[in-house]
Amino acid sequence: MSMDEAARIALLSRLFEADTPGVDVGIGDDAAVLAPDAVGARRIVWTIDEQVDAVHFRRDLVSWHDLGWRSLMAAASDVAAMGAVPWCALTAMVLPGDVDDAALGQIGQGQRDASRVLGAPVVGGNLSQGRVLSIATTVLGTCERPVRRRGAREGDGVWLAGSIGIARAGLEALLRASPMRAGLEPALAAWRTPRALIAEGRAMALCAHAAIDVSDGLACDVGHIAQASGVAIVLDEAALLADPALCDAADALGESALHLALFGGEDYALVMASAVEAPGFRRIGTVRAGSGIAVRGFSGERPIEPRGFDHFRADCFVTGKRPEASRS
Amino acid sequence: MSMDEAARIALLSRLFEADTPGVDVGIGDDAAVLAPDAVGARRIVWTIDEQVDAVHFRRDLVSWHDLGWRSLMAAASDVAAMGAVPWCALTAMVLPGDVDDAALGQIGQGQRDASRVLGAPVVGGNLSQGRVLSIATTVLGTCERPVRRRGAREGDGVWLAGSIGIARAGLEALLRASPMRAGLEPALAAWRTPRALIAEGRAMALCAHAAIDVSDGLACDVGHIAQASGVAIVLDEAALLADPALCDAADALGESALHLALFGGEDYALVMASAVEAPGFRRIGTVRAGSGIAVRGFSGERPIEPRGFDHFRADCFVTGKRPEASRS
Repeated sequence: MSMDEAARIALLSRLFEADTPGVDVGIGDDAAVLAPDAVGARRIVWTIDEQVDAVHFRRDLVSWHDLGWRSLMAAASDVAAMGAVPWCALTAMVLPGDVDDAALGQIGQGQRDASRVLGAPVVGGNLSQGRVLSIATTVLGTCERPVRRRGAREGDGVWLAGSIGIARAGLEALLRASPMRAGLEPALAAWRTPRALIAEGRAMALCAHAAIDVSDGLACDVGHIAQASGVAIVLDEAALLADPALCDAADALGESALHLALFGGEDYALVMASAVEAPGFRRIGTVRAGSGIAVRGFSGERPIEPRGFDHFRADCFVTGKRPEASRS
Repeated sequence: MSMDEAARIALLSRLFEADTPGVDVGIGDDAAVLAPDAVGARRIVWTIDEQVDAVHFRRDLVSWHDLGWRSLMAAASDVAAMGAVPWCALTAMVLPGDVDDAALGQIGQGQRDASRVLGAPVVGGNLSQGRVLSIATTVLGTCERPVRRRGAREGDGVWLAGSIGIARAGLEALLRASPMRAGLEPALAAWRTPRALIAEGRAMALCAHAAIDVSDGLACDVGHIAQASGVAIVLDEAALLADPALCDAADALGESALHLALFGGEDYALVMASAVEAPGFRRIGTVRAGSGIAVRGFSGERPIEPRGFDHFRADCFVTGKRPEASRS
């Protein structure tokens, strides 16, 4: 049996209760109230992300806790991609009747655990019933100097923080539901409990000309930088494959590691264009004059489509179909 | 045929494009960027609301334009209820395959029209596919002094801005789908195109001890003030019925006007507890020592349940069932 809405809000209030400086009013009023002290002369960065059952996750593939965790991390990653620090979050959940109070409590714990790692408390939200489970998460952040997608310059290096392709390998392993082979544990964890790269984002803000987080897939997301900046980007195949965990996972699945690295999504890595290195980043390519993206490999250079997962072309990511959409 | 996600985002960007002071980066990057100038020493007020198909609306009862309009107004009303002025908004939409680009354009136009009336531009959002249409809207506002649900004092008047019960009458009329009778036009408009009472909220912020917006129903929402403030509230039946439009609509439907006024939701009126009047408000009751709420009518005083629409008790608002949930 389900508690009524007030009891469910009280449950989440207890979970999210936090002594956070700058939060005057948290859960339980018409709106959260934030003191302006945390902002000062800094810029406010603001994003919303949504995770929908059978589109971004499938309930049999992820625990309630991890569902809450990844919903918050996915939204916070957009804040990291601007070089900003998360400040606080709101969560709007649509809950079918079969998501009981224990499940809601676990989703809330996942959100709380993620919010603690991020240093950004959940200060409010909304609960609705509905036939399809979804979690919309909005995050506020602050920064001195936001890093946009536009701004990459000819001659810049292209730099990566975090892993790419691994989360997709983890999802692929879950979809096949075959007895798990060695080498796939890091991939499963990457898909189930990703981390927004906040520290890396802050480091990058000091030098990056342009940046994005890798949510749809490297080819797609780097394509956004190239298009917004009016440049071409050439990725280095050897650099993309210099990740033992990715190669192990690809081997275990019998998949191409390069394909996973280029087109797999949901890793929440950060990519920046910068003339100089930043802590936590490794070089994976170069910005050139022109347009489009290419991979420079062992057998020369070839253009690639800046594609990845597109909600409006792929019927459903987690059916296991390879996304075929172009997005530019 | 549907455009791909990038084209849809471009469509919305063109709609929402606005020369808004204080918005450094709008749609099209990882996050919106806001300059802190609009905040200064003011408080930031922040809310999220979600409208879900077959729960908060039904696609055959509302135009695409009005769906966009009411999704933004419902969220902005929470900002008004704190005595704050809306600043800007983000919208996260889940769109089934049969919501085509023309429909999306009309939803966006409804959002834009509402945002212009509110003076709060849509500066970003998120698009997902999914089986059930939903729109989550988050709004930032600013104010000198937020008005909370707690703070009502014994002896305060209870004051109302806007109409109550009318929106529910409009929905009831739509659900019956019978040939429309005279007197119901204002009710239909109230449900389809509500207005967040921003000016009234600002006026109230100068004097209110406590406030809320009437989204779930007067009895339920006034119950929140009573509970949060640790007081009793007595509503005046004659004052609740002093609205010709409500009485006309109730007559046309053969419903009790008092029942509509007490338990109908989605009017987005404002209620405050205050020792003094504010422009746009009329008195509908009194704050007393004690707890709970009551109606003082022609035949004496009787307690009423602080109930209204509760997503987790009522199966579906728009099935026409009268909400039976208690919420306290």
